[in-house]
Amino acid sequence: MQIIIAKSAGFCFGVRRALELVEAALNAEEKSPIFSLGPLIHNPTVVKGLEAKGLHVVNQIEEVPEGRVVIRSHGVGPGIYQYAKEKNLEVIDATCPFVKNVHQLAVLLKKEGYQLIIIGEREHAEVKGVLDSAAGEALIVSSPTELEQMNLELKVGIISQTTQDINNFQQIVCQIVKRTKECRVFNTICLATSKRQQEVAELSKQVDLVIVVGGKNSANTCRLAEIAANNGTLTYHVESAAELQTDWFQDKKVVGITAGASTPDSQINAVVEKIKSLGGIISD
Amino acid sequence: MQIIIAKSAGFCFGVRRALELVEAALNAEEKSPIFSLGPLIHNPTVVKGLEAKGLHVVNQIEEVPEGRVVIRSHGVGPGIYQYAKEKNLEVIDATCPFVKNVHQLAVLLKKEGYQLIIIGEREHAEVKGVLDSAAGEALIVSSPTELEQMNLELKVGIISQTTQDINNFQQIVCQIVKRTKECRVFNTICLATSKRQQEVAELSKQVDLVIVVGGKNSANTCRLAEIAANNGTLTYHVESAAELQTDWFQDKKVVGITAGASTPDSQINAVVEKIKSLGGIISD
Repeated sequence: MQIIIAKSAGFCFGVRRALELVEAALNAEEKSPIFSLGPLIHNPTVVKGLEAKGLHVVNQIEEVPEGRVVIRSHGVGPGIYQYAKEKNLEVIDATCPFVKNVHQLAVLLKKEGYQLIIIGEREHAEVKGVLDSAAGEALIVSSPTELEQMNLELKVGIISQTTQDINNFQQIVCQIVKRTKECRVFNTICLATSKRQQEVAELSKQVDLVIVVGGKNSANTCRLAEIAANNGTLTYHVESAAELQTDWFQDKKVVGITAGASTPDSQINAVVEKIKSLGGIISD
Repeated sequence: MQIIIAKSAGFCFGVRRALELVEAALNAEEKSPIFSLGPLIHNPTVVKGLEAKGLHVVNQIEEVPEGRVVIRSHGVGPGIYQYAKEKNLEVIDATCPFVKNVHQLAVLLKKEGYQLIIIGEREHAEVKGVLDSAAGEALIVSSPTELEQMNLELKVGIISQTTQDINNFQQIVCQIVKRTKECRVFNTICLATSKRQQEVAELSKQVDLVIVVGGKNSANTCRLAEIAANNGTLTYHVESAAELQTDWFQDKKVVGITAGASTPDSQINAVVEKIKSLGGIISD
């Protein structure tokens, strides 16, 4: 049984940077307590590991009494920075630079008089943060169907959650363009995301089975599994090697493996090792 | 046999305005010779009528020795105005305001560093004029297929020939959006055009036969005929009532009639009268 591992599997730049910033803060001489506003990444195993090293996870900034607060790679809106400043909290800003760019574009588009449209999931932390940068004034669209019910102005500006699916983004923009006079579109899907999506789409056509490794609460990981499954390939999304079932691999000739942007190499390797123990051989 | 006449059939604002400007110039006390740069509208009958009243048609501005030159509703680029100024020709500018807007946007987008894309037909006078306003620096795209072979920059600005089909425009923009980082789209399709296209699309579904009246050299008229035919309805494009053939109407219950933006009411009425003589009754 052949194993093909997607080249783009695992940590993206923003996640790697956030983890490095946090490791540095945990190891620094500075000993004030350190909090992360929300789990640092959508991977429960990694989060537990950091908690063991002293990173406290809170859900609201108001739960941080003092010390240092880590803004995770998803980013937050201006209200959070304001609060931290007022409470003299030290901010460790691990917002991914690509996400910062989305915030800046939101502000620019509002300033230039566009109706702002964010293509993304309204409950996702990244989208909530960008909406906050736009003072709450934006339409959030997750699908072309949702768009049908919305009133659009004649001049709209479009940005995207960095982990959106490029095809969904394209379909939504396609519908908007027909209904407006001016449409300024920034394709802010992160390249790491789109490469990963493209690679799993191609991989799923070459294999009998796809294993996607990553947190069940990781939107970008779920999307990879969706893409593979939508191509008609048997696909399983697992958080750890322990979830793998032997019968999945029966009679399979080629297995493809990828992983979301918040999946550490250790988790990917554990999954690969388990599949090797079932007879898999890695392709070069 | 029922006759349904599209409400949007016939002259658009730009054409009506051009004809009014020319009629006023022909009737003015000023007696210097008056030339039109290209046939005023794409309707041979109307053009012949104006020639009889003293409007000389030329193909190149260099053919105008003196006097007054009419710029027709399709518009021209800066080179023409410059030449006229140098030769002391009086310009009667009948460029449609909607076309002027496309020129202004072309200049704006170039100035702001966008790669300019004009969605339109490269041989059409309107497109040539806009290209000239962009100093010849623009991609002209008439279909999504053509686009596949083109190199796009990361920041593109899109405008459209005013008489483009909205679905073609949408499909091209849809492809571009996926290949760029920033895409600024101005839907410059004239409302009169899109209403006319929408109406013929709906009309063609309600009738057994569509008659489209207008110059064979009128791009927007040809497009109306295409739209009706593409919906699977028997469609004929005629320039005059004389082209109508009796057998077209045999066994037809409902006939739809529309006309391009350069078709005078007299031509539409002549066609309607001919069809009435074959048993047609106008629906309210």
